[in-house]
Parts: sequence; structure tokens; C-alpha cells
Amino acid sequence: MTRFPVLGPGREFDLIRDVAQTVHDHAELVVGPGDDCAVLNGGWVITCDASVENVHFRREWLNAEEIGYRATAVALSDVAAVAATPVAILSSLVSPTRDYGHFVHDIMAGVMRAAAAAGAILAGGDTTHTDGPLVIDVTAMGMASAPILRSGARLGDEVWVTGHLGAAASAVYAWLRGKQPDPAARTAFANPQPRVHEALWLGDRADIHSLIDISDGLAADLQHIAAASSVAITVHADLLPVPSDLADLKLALSGGDDYELCFTAAPGEIEPISNEFIDQFGIALSRIGEVQTGSGVRILDSHGQPIVLERAGYDHFGDTT
Amino acid sequence: MTRFPVLGPGREFDLIRDVAQTVHDHAELVVGPGDDCAVLNGGWVITCDASVENVHFRREWLNAEEIGYRATAVALSDVAAVAATPVAILSSLVSPTRDYGHFVHDIMAGVMRAAAAAGAILAGGDTTHTDGPLVIDVTAMGMASAPILRSGARLGDEVWVTGHLGAAASAVYAWLRGKQPDPAARTAFANPQPRVHEALWLGDRADIHSLIDISDGLAADLQHIAAASSVAITVHADLLPVPSDLADLKLALSGGDDYELCFTAAPGEIEPISNEFIDQFGIALSRIGEVQTGSGVRILDSHGQPIVLERAGYDHFGDTT
Repeated sequence: MTRFPVLGPGREFDLIRDVAQTVHDHAELVVGPGDDCAVLNGGWVITCDASVENVHFRREWLNAEEIGYRATAVALSDVAAVAATPVAILSSLVSPTRDYGHFVHDIMAGVMRAAAAAGAILAGGDTTHTDGPLVIDVTAMGMASAPILRSGARLGDEVWVTGHLGAAASAVYAWLRGKQPDPAARTAFANPQPRVHEALWLGDRADIHSLIDISDGLAADLQHIAAASSVAITVHADLLPVPSDLADLKLALSGGDDYELCFTAAPGEIEPISNEFIDQFGIALSRIGEVQTGSGVRILDSHGQPIVLERAGYDHFGDTT
Repeated sequence: MTRFPVLGPGREFDLIRDVAQTVHDHAELVVGPGDDCAVLNGGWVITCDASVENVHFRREWLNAEEIGYRATAVALSDVAAVAATPVAILSSLVSPTRDYGHFVHDIMAGVMRAAAAAGAILAGGDTTHTDGPLVIDVTAMGMASAPILRSGARLGDEVWVTGHLGAAASAVYAWLRGKQPDPAARTAFANPQPRVHEALWLGDRADIHSLIDISDGLAADLQHIAAASSVAITVHADLLPVPSDLADLKLALSGGDDYELCFTAAPGEIEPISNEFIDQFGIALSRIGEVQTGSGVRILDSHGQPIVLERAGYDHFGDTT
């Protein structure tokens, strides 16, 4: 019996919802469209992620090697987001003919660096040209004996995140205003670290009920957990691991591109292992909220008042009419 | 021990060659980049194929549903080309924002039609926008207990193809000259039939030594079999299954987009089952040549003289300097 996850709001997700409704049960498909990865019989998980010039990155922001690295890292982040071990990737590189030569070779070097860092191998791909912007679509496959889905959050769960939030979005914020970002912020955007080993460690040490990676912004990604698990989630803004030099809290909530993990677990489950996690990976675990009855995501300020976001996260079709 | 297939000539393949050289052995990878599919442990095969507006198709040529169908069919053709059973696909749809609405829904309807015809399910994907041409990248997965590769051709083998060649290329030829193609030629281009069931039937009934699908043109694709198998291949032009109304034989040799199968088998292996194949699938099997010592592909006319092609097949980087 194939499971079809429920998605949070957003125009991009409306299309996926419509299409997923036409997908029927399939004996080989354990989890269909709507989670970070599809899950196949035998423990294989698979995902794909397209990175488009002028949408996800600009050439003024990243060099060729970083373009390839980042495109691959964000696909591998979806494998981490179900607590699977990455195995193989395929890359479809659609590049302007003027890029042929060193530029595309450098892109592929970045693809290989991201794959190697995650223990995955380049198994195949496609190359073709375009008279438009560069597109690189990366398919990532992994193995998981027990993939952790978005749909497992339970009432009373604590909500946790890894690392810091908002740095990558602050780099984009600076670039879009014609400024050079802080070097650490630039690195967060250009060299995201898919939390592959962290997810496997957490899945091994604790009973993680639900898991997602933060790609579209914390608020939007939590909405997927809330929708898939039929629960409400409350986040306390003053608990968010936001860099102290980040001017705008809302970047940490609605800005994407962090590729940290967000997960839920029973109360008291994570606190005892949080110091060991820091020792192991050099990044913190932060409890940021809790799972309640109801639906949707509420973000409360230090006075318990709801914070209203202009947009919850990155919606690829959000700027159309 | 991972096998890395040797590719035929072509600038696109030079890039793949360079990248594949940096891929190392991996316990989970049976066949690495360079065949129609990568082969993973446990019998999974996987491939991806990017279809780019103004490169692989034009909006004046295809409607939205056909764009989605064709993009998916050509990826599934690579699964057929290793005699695997299609299981799942993922589609990454990169579309201009003006297409959002009916157009992208129709594209996805075409994706679903192609998947259903091959017995595969849409397991996942990605959607995003672009300020450039539409791109749809389809990943296809299948299962094969004994995948048939490009590298298995043996000296003395006969070379066979399914169906007819050149019709799709003649449609493109007409369009590029401002003419409307013959309806049958248009159908061959817009609705290619991945030979999934034919490949499985052939693999079941006969000892097929090597197999490829004809996507870049017969001459170019045979060069891959020759290179991967360390053999030479001779093709007799007067044996080619070319539609009688096709003016230019060279379209059948160097034009791509047929998505028929080409395979080699021992002398006398295929002839006894060829009538049953026609009865079963309504298309013919044609013996077109033989495998010999040496390297490369020779095409001989009815007088035994070599036919020289200006280009062997479609090279996505062939028009760059």
C-alpha cells in the first residue's frame, strides 16, 4: 500500500498535489510524491532537485565548482532528510554552449566533491546544451532500513533543529541589494553541508518521529510536517538558533537555503544526547517548539504574540499571478 | 568491481569520459556512467534524460501533453535499452512562469501517460521556474535480473534493429525547413514508443549479446556498441528498414529520435523468432549488419562502397567551437 504524504500550502505544492492524486498504488512504491524522497521496496530512497541559474543562484554569486557542488548538496540534503545513507547520484547538466570546456568541467568537479563528501558515487547523467540559463538537475539515491518521514510527528513532541538558521538567506539578501555578503553567510549559501551523517547519527541514537530538511525556510518546511502529520506546530522565536549578527529574524524563518535538519521527538528524548552531538559534529541542536493538536504553524515572539510572515517560504510559482 | 563502459566518439561523450574517469569503484554500483543506464546492486537500473525547449523540441512542433510524454518516453527508452522492467520515474519540471496553470498540468498528464504505458509510476520530482526555455528532466528506474549492456557484442554477431528508422528525423527535417511533416513522421517524433515490452520479450526468447536504443542516430549509437565491445560493426544500407517515402537515406543513419532498439546476437539466433515478434508487436525485426574484428562503424552501399556521413549523429556540443 503506497503512502502519499500530505503537503503544506503553496502554489508549487498545489501542482504536486494535483499530479500525486493521479498516482495510484504500486507494489514497488512505499512512499509516493510529497516527502523529501520517494521510498521504494527494499529500502531505496530517491529524490531529484533542479538548480536553475537566476532562480536558485547567479553566476555573480558562485563559481562553476560551487554551482555543481551546491546543486548536488541540496539533492543529497533530501536523502539526509529521510535519514538514509547516500549511495549514488545522477546529474543532468543543461548548459549554454559558451560554457563548454573548463566551466562545465568545473561544475562536474563540484558535483563530484559533494557526492564524495556524502559517500555517494556519480552513477550516470545527461549533458545537453540550451540557449537559456544553466540548469543542473541532480537525482540522489540512498538506502534506509527505516526512513524517517514528515508524517510521523506526534502530539507533545518537541521540535528541534540542527546548526544555525538564516545565514544563507542573509547572503542572498545582501547580493540582491548590491552588497557583498558577510564571508560566513556567503559560505553558508555556496557550500551548504547536507546533514547526512547527523541524520544517521540521530536516527541511530534517538527515536526521531518526523524529519525534514530546511530548504524553503523553516516556517514553510514545518508546514509540511504539520500537514503530513495532521498536527499543529508552535515555534518560539526566541529559541531559534539565529546568528547574532543577523539583523532580520524573519530571514531565519522565511529564508530558505539553510539545509539544516528539523525534526520532532518525544519530550526528553534529545536533551541527553545534545552535548554528544555537538562534540561529534561541531554544531548545536536547538529545541525550538512543540507539536500540538490542530493544524498549521504558529510562530510566537518572546511575549507569546504571533509573528506574521509576509510569506512562509520560497514558493517557486509564488511570483506568478 | 564496478564496470565503466567505453563510449563512442563525440564531444558530449568526451565530457562524460572525463568525468567517468574520476569515478571510482563502489560496492553498490555494478555498471557506472556510459551505458544506457547505471546498474546498481540488487538489479536496479537508473537513467536520466533532459529535454530542452529549442534543442530537443519546439513549442510549434509539440503540444504540452506531447512535450511531457516525449520527455518521459525517451528516458524510459533507456530502461528498455538494458532490457529492464520500468518501475518508477521522477520528473524535474523547469518552466517559465507564464506556463503555470493548464500548460504545466498538460505536461504532467503527458508524463503520466508515458509512465503508465510502460508500467511505471511517478514516484517524485521537482518543479521550479526559469526565465529561459522549458526544461524537463526525467529520471527512470527499472529492475533487471540480467541487464543487457552495450559491451557484450561478440565477433560474428548479427546486428538487428526493431521497427523503422528515419521517420522522426524526417519530421524535424521538414519543420526546420518551414514545412509540415508527413502525419506519420510527426507521430514518430511526438509519440515515440519506448520498446520496453519488445526488449523484455527479446531478452526472454533469445541470447541477446548487446543492446542499445537509437536516440542519437543509428551510426552514432552503433559506435557506442563498437567502442564498448571492442569490435567493428558493418552495416549494409540496403538492409536498413527505411520508410519508402523517405528521400534521404542519411536521415535514417544520422538522424536521431527513433527510439527503436538495436542489438546483436549470434548468427541464426533471431531469424526463427522474427515472425512471432511481428505477430506480437506489429513491428518488424531487420538484420542490418554484422560484428567484425577492428573498431568503429562502416556503412556500405549496395555496391559495397563506404557511405560517408557528414556527422554520425546528434552531438549536443557539436555546434560549439
